[in-house]
Amino acid sequence: MTQSREIHLRSRPQGLPVPENFELVDVVVAQPGPGQAQVRNLWMTVDPYMRGRMNDVKSYTPPFQIGHPLDGGAVGEVIASNDPTLHVGDLVKSNLGWREVFNAPASGLEKLIAPDLPPEAFLSVAGMPGLTAYAGLLRVAALKPGDVVFVSGAAGAVGSMVCQIAKLRGHKVVASAGGPEKVRFLQDLGVDVAIDYKAAPDLTAAVLAAVPEGIDVYFDNVGGDHLQAAIAAARPRARFAMCGMISMYNATAPTPGPSNLAGIITKSLRLEGFIVNDHADLAPEFYRALMGWRTEGRLQWKETIRHGLESAPDAFIGLFRGENLGKMLVKIA
Amino acid sequence: MTQSREIHLRSRPQGLPVPENFELVDVVVAQPGPGQAQVRNLWMTVDPYMRGRMNDVKSYTPPFQIGHPLDGGAVGEVIASNDPTLHVGDLVKSNLGWREVFNAPASGLEKLIAPDLPPEAFLSVAGMPGLTAYAGLLRVAALKPGDVVFVSGAAGAVGSMVCQIAKLRGHKVVASAGGPEKVRFLQDLGVDVAIDYKAAPDLTAAVLAAVPEGIDVYFDNVGGDHLQAAIAAARPRARFAMCGMISMYNATAPTPGPSNLAGIITKSLRLEGFIVNDHADLAPEFYRALMGWRTEGRLQWKETIRHGLESAPDAFIGLFRGENLGKMLVKIA
Repeated sequence: MTQSREIHLRSRPQGLPVPENFELVDVVVAQPGPGQAQVRNLWMTVDPYMRGRMNDVKSYTPPFQIGHPLDGGAVGEVIASNDPTLHVGDLVKSNLGWREVFNAPASGLEKLIAPDLPPEAFLSVAGMPGLTAYAGLLRVAALKPGDVVFVSGAAGAVGSMVCQIAKLRGHKVVASAGGPEKVRFLQDLGVDVAIDYKAAPDLTAAVLAAVPEGIDVYFDNVGGDHLQAAIAAARPRARFAMCGMISMYNATAPTPGPSNLAGIITKSLRLEGFIVNDHADLAPEFYRALMGWRTEGRLQWKETIRHGLESAPDAFIGLFRGENLGKMLVKIA
Repeated sequence: MTQSREIHLRSRPQGLPVPENFELVDVVVAQPGPGQAQVRNLWMTVDPYMRGRMNDVKSYTPPFQIGHPLDGGAVGEVIASNDPTLHVGDLVKSNLGWREVFNAPASGLEKLIAPDLPPEAFLSVAGMPGLTAYAGLLRVAALKPGDVVFVSGAAGAVGSMVCQIAKLRGHKVVASAGGPEKVRFLQDLGVDVAIDYKAAPDLTAAVLAAVPEGIDVYFDNVGGDHLQAAIAAARPRARFAMCGMISMYNATAPTPGPSNLAGIITKSLRLEGFIVNDHADLAPEFYRALMGWRTEGRLQWKETIRHGLESAPDAFIGLFRGENLGKMLVKIA
């Protein structure tokens, strides 16, 4: 019997989530049953997509249930095992974040072999955000030589990786984020033009000033005005990888879309939404590329870390306030 | 020397075009020079895309110039020739509509070989609108077996062809148009559900009632509420062929787009704008298919005909009032 704590969904957020939507619950975890291991989470991730799961609507993942623990990516250490494939001390990745200790079938735990990366990297640069960037830029947007790339939400976990992959491949990159600290991070990443959208009175004008020649690829993490600006700046046959629309996730009333969608037709644009799970086949290729860049010292990433499971709701809410530089993570133990 | 008349752009429309934006001008056409033929137009087409060319903005085709004749698809008869490849009486297709008689290099005229079709069909079912439907549905939207198809502007030249191609290939088709006469036409074409959008208080609800299972392909001629409804009704990985947004073309102020664009991400949708000129390579294949359907008696098309060059502005304006059933054409001679 082990003491643990979990974060439950107490109520569905209306608009921006508030701490009262969450509840920290004490639980007791039994010994692991046959075929199970017991894991103590070391790190968990909070991601913008989780906001959608807090609404009671069908999407590509089922909604969270009120009164039940939330879930999401986590990395932990095996502290007891009732399965021959896992041993005490093994590091494992799971989708059972938002809790301290849990039992799970060994078959549902991914053992980490991480010679050169800290375990939390498997929740950021070497995990879902990294693969999202790789698949979105190279497969969905079909990046090709000479393309000019525009990235929104560029200082986040996904966006900062998109910027780096595009620069590593020799592309001109325009990136937007909110505030001077994030702009400096983007400049450190080597982007050609970093736009502070909070300081830009007219985002479309700012993008067009940065790249008068126009853009060929847009990687969208934001939606709204950023999508409008990307359509305005797009060259004919530009491809948009539609990854996220964080500007929309907390809307409490229908928020109209861009007024220039006719540009999709007049410029023969392609807008394609995607979900990283559909591109899992690229994971080995991505991981090889990542290790190569890492070995060459050409890869940077940032993490914004909150401490203790009890800080997870604030970490999550902070995503929508732009409080994260790079990946927002919670260090649980 | 031959007397002729042309329609010039007198002023750029603000919103819905009015007759005063156009001017009927008397001109004299000289004898055709070396390598030229002289053509008397029999038919010309008016198309929604021409509205965009009346604005002074760069697009995939250059804007019309004030004080100059408009242009667009036309079919005419050679009445004099100064080139060995064309003879008096030949039927030719050109982009020199909006005028009665003109001289042009023979190399810029496409001689029609039309054993089984009236010449005006090369401006509708066998011309640009037909190829637009074919390329948009089969290549851009990548129609595949089992797909449920939603078509807006379905009683127009392009839309009615999309409906028929989809039905000929065995698909379930939901089609929308405005008014009972158009709905009857769609029913004659064999669509599974015809929606009169003017009589539907909630278009999204109407589409979802017609196809509770959702749609896999959307062929957009309208934009606006229709696009919103299509996103709402889309199944995961649906493909949208973005062909036109007639609901937007006369907007005098920015018109916001759909409020549910986040569905592009949550459903992994692909929205792709296209221009028929980029799919000219499909013309031979399309034409063979068309002749096959024609021979089997499985093809219908409608035309709404206005008479005399002087009626061309009204015919054009009528497109935006929904006055056409099938292709809007002007019979010039």
